[in-house]
Amino acid sequence: MDEVLKEVLERIKPTQAERKQLEKVANDMVARVNLACAKLGVPARGMLVGSAARETWLRFERDIDIFILFPEKLSREKLERDGLRVARAVAGQKGRERFAEHPYITTRVGSFEIDFVPCYDVADAGKIKSAVDRSPHHQRYISKRLTPELTDEVLLLKKFMIGIGAYGAELKVQGFSGYLCELLALCYRTFKAVVEAASKWSPGEAIDLTRSYHDFGEIKALFPGQPLVIIDPVDPNRNVAAAVSMQNFSTFVRACQDFVRKPNEHFFFPNQARVLSSQEIRRVLKQRDTTLFCLVFDSPDVVEDILYPQLHKTEQALVMRLVRAGFEVLRSDVWANSKATILIELSSEKLPRVQRRIGPPITVEAGDFIEKHLVSRQRFSGPFVDKAGRLVFEVERRHVNARQVLEVALEERAAFGKHVAESLAKSYKIYGGKQIVKLCVDKKFSKFLSEYLTRCLPWYR
Amino acid sequence: MDEVLKEVLERIKPTQAERKQLEKVANDMVARVNLACAKLGVPARGMLVGSAARETWLRFERDIDIFILFPEKLSREKLERDGLRVARAVAGQKGRERFAEHPYITTRVGSFEIDFVPCYDVADAGKIKSAVDRSPHHQRYISKRLTPELTDEVLLLKKFMIGIGAYGAELKVQGFSGYLCELLALCYRTFKAVVEAASKWSPGEAIDLTRSYHDFGEIKALFPGQPLVIIDPVDPNRNVAAAVSMQNFSTFVRACQDFVRKPNEHFFFPNQARVLSSQEIRRVLKQRDTTLFCLVFDSPDVVEDILYPQLHKTEQALVMRLVRAGFEVLRSDVWANSKATILIELSSEKLPRVQRRIGPPITVEAGDFIEKHLVSRQRFSGPFVDKAGRLVFEVERRHVNARQVLEVALEERAAFGKHVAESLAKSYKIYGGKQIVKLCVDKKFSKFLSEYLTRCLPWYR
Repeated sequence: MDEVLKEVLERIKPTQAERKQLEKVANDMVARVNLACAKLGVPARGMLVGSAARETWLRFERDIDIFILFPEKLSREKLERDGLRVARAVAGQKGRERFAEHPYITTRVGSFEIDFVPCYDVADAGKIKSAVDRSPHHQRYISKRLTPELTDEVLLLKKFMIGIGAYGAELKVQGFSGYLCELLALCYRTFKAVVEAASKWSPGEAIDLTRSYHDFGEIKALFPGQPLVIIDPVDPNRNVAAAVSMQNFSTFVRACQDFVRKPNEHFFFPNQARVLSSQEIRRVLKQRDTTLFCLVFDSPDVVEDILYPQLHKTEQALVMRLVRAGFEVLRSDVWANSKATILIELSSEKLPRVQRRIGPPITVEAGDFIEKHLVSRQRFSGPFVDKAGRLVFEVERRHVNARQVLEVALEERAAFGKHVAESLAKSYKIYGGKQIVKLCVDKKFSKFLSEYLTRCLPWYR
Repeated sequence: MDEVLKEVLERIKPTQAERKQLEKVANDMVARVNLACAKLGVPARGMLVGSAARETWLRFERDIDIFILFPEKLSREKLERDGLRVARAVAGQKGRERFAEHPYITTRVGSFEIDFVPCYDVADAGKIKSAVDRSPHHQRYISKRLTPELTDEVLLLKKFMIGIGAYGAELKVQGFSGYLCELLALCYRTFKAVVEAASKWSPGEAIDLTRSYHDFGEIKALFPGQPLVIIDPVDPNRNVAAAVSMQNFSTFVRACQDFVRKPNEHFFFPNQARVLSSQEIRRVLKQRDTTLFCLVFDSPDVVEDILYPQLHKTEQALVMRLVRAGFEVLRSDVWANSKATILIELSSEKLPRVQRRIGPPITVEAGDFIEKHLVSRQRFSGPFVDKAGRLVFEVERRHVNARQVLEVALEERAAFGKHVAESLAKSYKIYGGKQIVKLCVDKKFSKFLSEYLTRCLPWYR
């Protein structure tokens, strides 16, 4: 394993020259922010945060985060206005305004992507006004503790997370943030110790670096149902791993198990998923012999952190609807650029006309259940008691076709994401089976569909 | 309720004249047995047992059980030989030999069906040599305790069990025996109290009339998994309700709940199930839109108490095979006269070519699972981690057709009943869909299939 890690580190660690270059740009930007503050009479100062500040950035990474810290007592309107004025003064005309919780400005300097983010300089991290106010605290906590040796371990862990596809706390990914990787390295001291420990994790794992709680029972009660809980050292009420989905948690644990068993560079540098030709896609669809629906509609004009949770919510609502109607959903997924798509794969498009209705358990009076079903639309049989002792009616199924169920659900749009529902109300199209190949004129969709059909953990590609 | 019960009792209670007639025949037969014993020098005596002896027989019931009691120390061969000699002497030429645990003789006198059953006169019911030896003990226990009032309650309970289809301990029925009805009446004193108590039963109910055990924990440990345990007062090691299936237990409890809610005579005198014409059957099959298979083969030449458990075992083996292959089995049933049939109804005859294989939970190393599937026949995708965090492969399904699965299972005949397997090894035929209508030339099969398709608790017909 040591050999593999050594080789990987050589490929991912920035050179002295690269580091100098980034440092120069970053320091220059902070100086310019401070200068602009003075010039504009704004009571704020610049601060370099994130991986650029801690030297935990990977070679070829080009992101620099500069925060503009304002006094706590300033009004939000004033912070937003003055923050943008300062950022604009530094970034110039080419700076583009973006929006998270606050507006911020992003620009390009040479090969670097630079974000200027206004925030409050809050003394107590437990009392921040907006999520971005936490970053300066994280910056101070990590930079105080990260030795050059630990930095190497962070680089390995970040690259590992990227390689296995579990890196990034944004809601499109629901994975592990850079800060989370830094905390894990601080906790276990080496990359090797992290993967060895994580290979034995089970859902509900909790890490409390600063011993903010008495016991794990307390932590589990506070963060129920989360696969991974890492208490934030700067704010014990926050789970740094809150964004990590069960899927990414399990992917990471499996990757650690597999890496411990057979260390190699594929975890860090996986092969790309192969993009299938339209002809190959047509052949695979035929071989699978399933029923694949692709719901296509215009992406609502919202940021990805809003769009993806809504897409997943809508996907989930449609899947539940189909399952409750009796269909077996094999898999589902979402994808978006200007068009949004929800893909749902069923084992069968049609169900028999007859449908079982199971009554309450024997200890519960079944009078109401029986009366209701005795007069149902079409009763094939029942009430009768099956071999397991359950009370059963066989009645006529309302919808025997999955497409019908989808169409009814898209009419009602219950439990859909708000903006997604609005877009679906305007128009949509359901592509089924071979029709889906038509969508592959969009090369990005084609790549998504190829990945879906040949899905594989990256280190097994 | 009292009114209903009074009217029912009037219809089911034998008249004075009927009772006299049966008594005369029964006493005459016992006398003849004793005479034959004396004449043949056989050290035995006749004893009237069963419902005829206890006046718990229903009007139009015509069964008389005469047991021939031999000394305990006699050899089994001698008992069987002498028993048959005595029985033959009384029954004459028309008596037919039958076989349960011992051979016995059955004959007809007037309108009565009379069984002559040799058995041992064992002092301790816990040390009997054969199940029939228990009957004299039951006879003594019940006749000592049954008052004329209690007899009426037994008649009501027996007729109720017959009406709801749960009467009879034979393995074709797996229901409630007459002796079990008598014990329930002894325990609760009235029919009304029985149904009121039973309407609150849940599986695992236990009754220990003679308080042979300290607590119910002891009983549950001795008779695990049985829906109903009634300790036999003459032998605490025996569960009188051992034959009662979960299906019949639940049917009885539901019947009691429904009767308490709405007492009426349909529970005792249900309408007959309607026999559908071939045309109606064809129409219902089409409406259901399911996949119905009917496996037909020659009934092996064994008694029903051997045949039916084997049919059910084979049915279960086939159903499990289909379920494991991924098919959804809606219902299944068996039927037999000279031909035996196993009916299996599926929601779909075909499954998609792709099949999911789920790996071990995350806490279990998955190396073996992964290695095995990486090289599987056709791998569509995987390993990947699904939303629930499970490790998944999608591989090619071996059999996409239910008929294929059945044919393979019928080739292997694993976990089938012995005699049924032998018959199936010789020949069988699988009827599918509309072909099944051809089998309806047999009116009895037609009746069975009609009942299957319109299955309904008798009191709701």
